[in-house]
Amino acid sequence: MEQVVNLDSRTYSIHIETDILSRIAKHFQRFRDEKIFIISDVRVSNVYGVTLTAVLKKAGFSVELLTFPEGESSKSVETVSQLWQALVKRGIDRHAVIVALGGGVSGDVAGFLAATILRGVRFVQIPTSLLAQVDSSVGGKVGINLPQAKNIVGAFWQPSLVLIDPHVLGTLEPRQFNSGMAEVIKYGVIMDKEFFLFLESNVDAIKELDSTVMCELIAKCCQLKARIVEEDETETSGRRAILNYGHTFGHAIENVFGYGVYLHGEAIAIGMTLAAKLAIESKHCDKSLLIRQTELFHRFDLPTELPGDLPADQLAALLDSMRLDKKSTGGRFNLILPCEIGRVEFTNDCDETLVRKIVFD
Amino acid sequence: MEQVVNLDSRTYSIHIETDILSRIAKHFQRFRDEKIFIISDVRVSNVYGVTLTAVLKKAGFSVELLTFPEGESSKSVETVSQLWQALVKRGIDRHAVIVALGGGVSGDVAGFLAATILRGVRFVQIPTSLLAQVDSSVGGKVGINLPQAKNIVGAFWQPSLVLIDPHVLGTLEPRQFNSGMAEVIKYGVIMDKEFFLFLESNVDAIKELDSTVMCELIAKCCQLKARIVEEDETETSGRRAILNYGHTFGHAIENVFGYGVYLHGEAIAIGMTLAAKLAIESKHCDKSLLIRQTELFHRFDLPTELPGDLPADQLAALLDSMRLDKKSTGGRFNLILPCEIGRVEFTNDCDETLVRKIVFD
Repeated sequence: MEQVVNLDSRTYSIHIETDILSRIAKHFQRFRDEKIFIISDVRVSNVYGVTLTAVLKKAGFSVELLTFPEGESSKSVETVSQLWQALVKRGIDRHAVIVALGGGVSGDVAGFLAATILRGVRFVQIPTSLLAQVDSSVGGKVGINLPQAKNIVGAFWQPSLVLIDPHVLGTLEPRQFNSGMAEVIKYGVIMDKEFFLFLESNVDAIKELDSTVMCELIAKCCQLKARIVEEDETETSGRRAILNYGHTFGHAIENVFGYGVYLHGEAIAIGMTLAAKLAIESKHCDKSLLIRQTELFHRFDLPTELPGDLPADQLAALLDSMRLDKKSTGGRFNLILPCEIGRVEFTNDCDETLVRKIVFD
Repeated sequence: MEQVVNLDSRTYSIHIETDILSRIAKHFQRFRDEKIFIISDVRVSNVYGVTLTAVLKKAGFSVELLTFPEGESSKSVETVSQLWQALVKRGIDRHAVIVALGGGVSGDVAGFLAATILRGVRFVQIPTSLLAQVDSSVGGKVGINLPQAKNIVGAFWQPSLVLIDPHVLGTLEPRQFNSGMAEVIKYGVIMDKEFFLFLESNVDAIKELDSTVMCELIAKCCQLKARIVEEDETETSGRRAILNYGHTFGHAIENVFGYGVYLHGEAIAIGMTLAAKLAIESKHCDKSLLIRQTELFHRFDLPTELPGDLPADQLAALLDSMRLDKKSTGGRFNLILPCEIGRVEFTNDCDETLVRKIVFD
């Protein structure tokens, strides 16, 4: 399957096929004469990177594999600085192609390298986690963290090509897979009721990684995200904000508990649940939405509630963190709230009392 | 005077006026409600930065001054990393404006910060060296050095506004001023005979920093560079390459002698002289061009020859460095050669024997 992201001169294709990685040489034909640099963390490099590099070398490509340590802590100035130097030492030129192989961290790191080395070279995404396949590999956001803040340094840098192989999800830990499903379910709630129904009807097939269902699922997510990105490439019109459904709560949860306690999708599932409760409380939607959303989360073992024994100071910290969110102003929270399955709206009429009631409930 | 650089949604104006800095509040009206960060090296900060900050504060703007050590060595990952963190600590948001105040280094560093913090914020250039006023502040090239190579990490990031005050050139060292004149003279040779004649007729007025003449000179350089940038914003069509007249030789000279022995413009003056000699030798132009170009360089105390006692190993290193230039392939040098005053052409028919003859002559 192929999805096209239409962005004028930056238009590109996303190819979604089971075992596409075994046919990588075919998809890389246009880079036949260029230097290719595959950037990957050590774990993904061992599972896929070494093989892919060998396959491309055998097919006559000029390709090198550069690795960095696994984990969010590699989205740092230090990692990027080392990789910039490694690329220069290996003779990178303006025609070179940088390939991100791995999850969101690889996409962010390799994408930022591609956006900045020699003022920008071509970039290919080969996402290997569900989260990266349905979310971070589409949209062109790349970047790194500073000690003070996540994703604070970066660029909008669109790939030239995205290759997605649902087959690789077989090597993903179930908890990571389910975390990705939170973002998949989000697409259904925010913009496509039919897709939400598709998910409800195919839980077992999804869990079994049925090829046809997974290709359709991933293609639909990429299509939905691409539609938003096409309307608001650099996040200026506000349209792209609907993708943040559940994220104001979710980011606060990640902040307060420390990254790693909850995976991103787990925090987002709790965040979407809180947002839906708030929507009911403020008469934006009726209870059935919350019930169906929660049911689907639970089918994928995703949490929908904060721990019951949360001390008061952690709850307070949660609200503080939400207040610091760049989307909040003057004691009112700007949030994306669902109206019905398939439609959300932006609201700034949620005051702190209401939010407090939902969180402390 | 105002020059407009037409780049679709990235179109911006360059304002050239004597004492424009005393009217900065007027030009900054559109940033009235935003956080403004002025980035400057310590020297320029003491001469202009502190005053400008005070003027803007008094006029009610939210403005902060961030400084870094003077010199090319500040175009580093370390400096940028510290400034990224300083901006975050001071609460930078997406509406903020980063102002580069100073020479080429400030423009490069501040521009790279603006291109990358929060995936890009607005950027204003206030260049205070002649080189920055006529060259680096137009065109959107920003970036830093790695230990292995100059300007290897960066972006194309266009400013929202450029303010140029010829008056500030009065505090520039004469050698720095003359270095800037090498690039000014280059514009005449590569694309505008009339401008070359204007320079020949106004040497004394230029040396005295006559306001009218300097405004006209800077405006013309900005206009000529803008015309090239408009045709080839991201250096892909090859059109922008004519700006590299003298630079293949010039960069090699800077490399071999170490940065700082020759100022950039001094190395370029020698480079343009060698390129003109090569053009005569390879029948691209006649001798009168070299004579007039050399005469004009000498009026501004610019060197036009390598030291006469250069040891053989340094000459060899010079050729090696040219061979490493990204514009050279397979033992042939790709060069910009003049045909007549006001017109250059790209050539790849210069073989090493000819280059060797010119350099060793």
